[in-house]
Amino acid sequence: MTDPRPTSYSRVSLGIMAHSSEANLLGNVHGGEIMKLADSTAGAVAHRHSGGPAVTAAMDDMTFLAPVHVGDIIKTYAQVNWAGTSSMEIGVRVEAQPWGNATDEPVHVASAYFVFVAIDDEGRPRPVPPLETETRGDVRRRREAEIRRSHRLARKAEIDEGREG
Amino acid sequence: MTDPRPTSYSRVSLGIMAHSSEANLLGNVHGGEIMKLADSTAGAVAHRHSGGPAVTAAMDDMTFLAPVHVGDIIKTYAQVNWAGTSSMEIGVRVEAQPWGNATDEPVHVASAYFVFVAIDDEGRPRPVPPLETETRGDVRRRREAEIRRSHRLARKAEIDEGREG
Amino acid sequence: MTDPRPTSYSRVSLGIMAHSSEANLLGNVHGGEIMKLADSTAGAVAHRHSGGPAVTAAMDDMTFLAPVHVGDIIKTYAQVNWAGTSSMEIGVRVEAQPWGNATDEPVHVASAYFVFVAIDDEGRPRPVPPLETETRGDVRRRREAEIRRSHRLARKAEIDEGREG
Amino acid sequence: MTDPRPTSYSRVSLGIMAHSSEANLLGNVHGGEIMKLADSTAGAVAHRHSGGPAVTAAMDDMTFLAPVHVGDIIKTYAQVNWAGTSSMEIGVRVEAQPWGNATDEPVHVASAYFVFVAIDDEGRPRPVPPLETETRGDVRRRREAEIRRSHRLARKAEIDEGREG
Amino acid sequence: MTDPRPTSYSRVSLGIMAHSSEANLLGNVHGGEIMKLADSTAGAVAHRHSGGPAVTAAMDDMTFLAPVHVGDIIKTYAQVNWAGTSSMEIGVRVEAQPWGNATDEPVHVASAYFVFVAIDDEGRPRPVPPLETETRGDVRRRREAEIRRSHRLARKAEIDEGREG
Amino acid sequence: MTDPRPTSYSRVSLGIMAHSSEANLLGNVHGGEIMKLADSTAGAVAHRHSGGPAVTAAMDDMTFLAPVHVGDIIKTYAQVNWAGTSSMEIGVRVEAQPWGNATDEPVHVASAYFVFVAIDDEGRPRPVPPLETETRGDVRRRREAEIRRSHRLARKAEIDEGREG
Repeated sequence: MTDPRPTSYSRVSLGIMAHSSEANLLGNVHGGEIMKLADSTAGAVAHRHSGGPAVTAAMDDMTFLAPVHVGDIIKTYAQVNWAGTSSMEIGVRVEAQPWGNATDEPVHVASAYFVFVAIDDEGRPRPVPPLETETRGDVRRRREAEIRRSHRLARKAEIDEGREG
Repeated sequence: MTDPRPTSYSRVSLGIMAHSSEANLLGNVHGGEIMKLADSTAGAVAHRHSGGPAVTAAMDDMTFLAPVHVGDIIKTYAQVNWAGTSSMEIGVRVEAQPWGNATDEPVHVASAYFVFVAIDDEGRPRPVPPLETETRGDVRRRREAEIRRSHRLARKAEIDEGREG
Repeated sequence: MTDPRPTSYSRVSLGIMAHSSEANLLGNVHGGEIMKLADSTAGAVAHRHSGGPAVTAAMDDMTFLAPVHVGDIIKTYAQVNWAGTSSMEIGVRVEAQPWGNATDEPVHVASAYFVFVAIDDEGRPRPVPPLETETRGDVRRRREAEIRRSHRLARKAEIDEGREG
Repeated sequence: MTDPRPTSYSRVSLGIMAHSSEANLLGNVHGGEIMKLADSTAGAVAHRHSGGPAVTAAMDDMTFLAPVHVGDIIKTYAQVNWAGTSSMEIGVRVEAQPWGNATDEPVHVASAYFVFVAIDDEGRPRPVPPLETETRGDVRRRREAEIRRSHRLARKAEIDEGREG
Repeated sequence: MTDPRPTSYSRVSLGIMAHSSEANLLGNVHGGEIMKLADSTAGAVAHRHSGGPAVTAAMDDMTFLAPVHVGDIIKTYAQVNWAGTSSMEIGVRVEAQPWGNATDEPVHVASAYFVFVAIDDEGRPRPVPPLETETRGDVRRRREAEIRRSHRLARKAEIDEGREG
Repeated sequence: MTDPRPTSYSRVSLGIMAHSSEANLLGNVHGGEIMKLADSTAGAVAHRHSGGPAVTAAMDDMTFLAPVHVGDIIKTYAQVNWAGTSSMEIGVRVEAQPWGNATDEPVHVASAYFVFVAIDDEGRPRPVPPLETETRGDVRRRREAEIRRSHRLARKAEIDEGREG
């Protein structure tokens, strides 16, 4: 079995400027663009923690707390929250800083939680290293990842039951 | 108040071919690309139902059931599942049909559930028409949308409580 | 020789939303974008019918019957009209549905006729299966493909003659 | 009425390098990419001759004489061949020069003939200046444009008749 | 006259992942892509310091110290080095961190020095605030900007003289 | 040792139309886009002169003499100015011709000087052919390339000294 890897090992942060081609006519950046950027950041984290390719298995609960506008700088901060046998939950925090307004605090735009599965060359799941938490925040994130996981399973069960009934 | 609009009024279906620039080196299309396409289809539906601009407020629960490869044709089918005062839940079904394999059945890749909010020119919420269900499937989708909504609220409460404790 | 393949075997339909980056300042989508989408759809059909790579050899007669605007949903419907030794004529119908106007009938934007040639790994022509027509429409399309083919040859002869004269 | 404009007034030439994102897996650039580039060049010519916006009304007869590969330099040469009341035929010659092979002669890839219509701010046709031919080649191009025009009308008539019969 | 603005006021940092569409066949990211990212970061800094639009007037001296490969994370760090009447020198440091190698130190890829000019709505130069240096590094950067400026002027003079001679 | 190659052997010229997605809200094309186009043209020249892959090692002195606007046609003209053991200086002249203004002279937008290094499959420098000048302009360009080279070295020395002092 692989040695555990600390959360700091695979942390990734990216930052881009929002372009008009990614926005509607009112200048609001599409939610889909922000999801794509978050998925891309989470993919880098999953690759680093697992030491190879990994694919998105699920995305769970992304709420947009504030709009992003053309010209804003969008930053993503991502790390592994939880690691299982071959899957990982990656949390991504998205912040925006309005263009031309450098002194203001960045705005919390959204947080997204992705499940990635590490795969081998044939696309089959492969084992990932255990996660070593380093801070109180890491411990909290792991606990919340487990809550999300059980809700995901419970919600799936309830909907399945409703379809069968 | 506006007259109710039937689900068929705003249904939208799109279809694209998956390009290598949207995939990793193993040929798997990134989850983020599929999310972006789903958000884009949902955005068209939200615009049609509400008769004007609408923005993504949340995306709830997207599981990838099967991988998508370069050259596959990706299709999206989206409709309003539930409508409130100024928000709507839009369900998007994503299917893929392998390139050069036209006789096979399309594969169910993912289903995504978006909450969109209709906005006016200043970005403030504006009212949306009620939804008129037309089929048994529409009724089931509305019921499931309500289950997701209550889980979303419950999960948020449990996590908030854990942070405060 | 390969068994004939029916028209339904390789039929492909795609659909996208027209973006402002593909339009002029008046909001009209460039004809070249629509040609590219039609060629792309026809390429998928040619690949499916011939069971491998195929390249555009000619495009014959594309008339734009109605403008497409930013925000419209553009749909393509393509199928094999005629198959020869290693080439095929693929017909593509392009329709547009105005954004936010879901109840209106889609507008017929253009029809394009492509000749594709199936190629092997060295880029040389390779044989394609015969076409099996299934409907009266298929029979009509094959007859019209032959008319276009003879006009293409006749027109070429007349222009060559004028250059030599 | 506007004064005639010579063919040299609006001639445009462009040149790009073919990228892998515009090609299939064998390295052949898609026909649709070349059509789009040709349409784009023709659009610049139409805008210049007519002094304002113009849209593609038809493309007539584009044959691909030689393949284009990733890394080739693609050049377009376009000019007005014929001008009517509000429409123009623009001819575009496409050449390719293989990457890393500068001393070879450029290869004639395709010639395309576009009909553009000049439009005003409401999208209605507006008059275009007459064309003044300057060389023997210009005279030949205008004659050939007229042949294409009559064939386009004849072919349309024959197909319409076949549908009615 | 506007109050001086400190270097920290307008500092900007961006980060992206290098994609294969921006690289040659050996996987090296094109220098032009890195220049474009650096220019884009510098543009954000110039906009913030000057409180409005600014355009690139010159780029002076960019050396690539290490190659960037597909999958690397590229980070830019930019700040104002010097401010004159309506122009500013912006320095941009570019670093790369190899994909899947999070514990290694980032590699210094290049440093670029841009001159931006603040413009008004008619494209004419407009005044910019003076720069307030805050650290010893800021003072060094301002001195080096002045060296680059005088070399730029000297070099231009020598070449002009050679042409006239 | 390879035979010398004349400047005419590897000369490359490209031309594109400037799109709104490459410009700011005032319609000015970003300097970074023009750098990227110049680098791309220079890369083709370096590949041709050296007969294989080459990467950007440095860009030296690019001044923007005139703005470029959306709709302008941007042309690049590039050739080898100087060749050493495994590196080359490539000069690129960038011109713009305003959209719809075909009779006006093209405007000189910028000149850029790139150093490219030819590399083998492992990314190590490989020898390049000597340059054979053909015209008085070629001789002047080679002399100016040497001036730029010595200034580059001198400037580097002066800045290094200032840091150590």
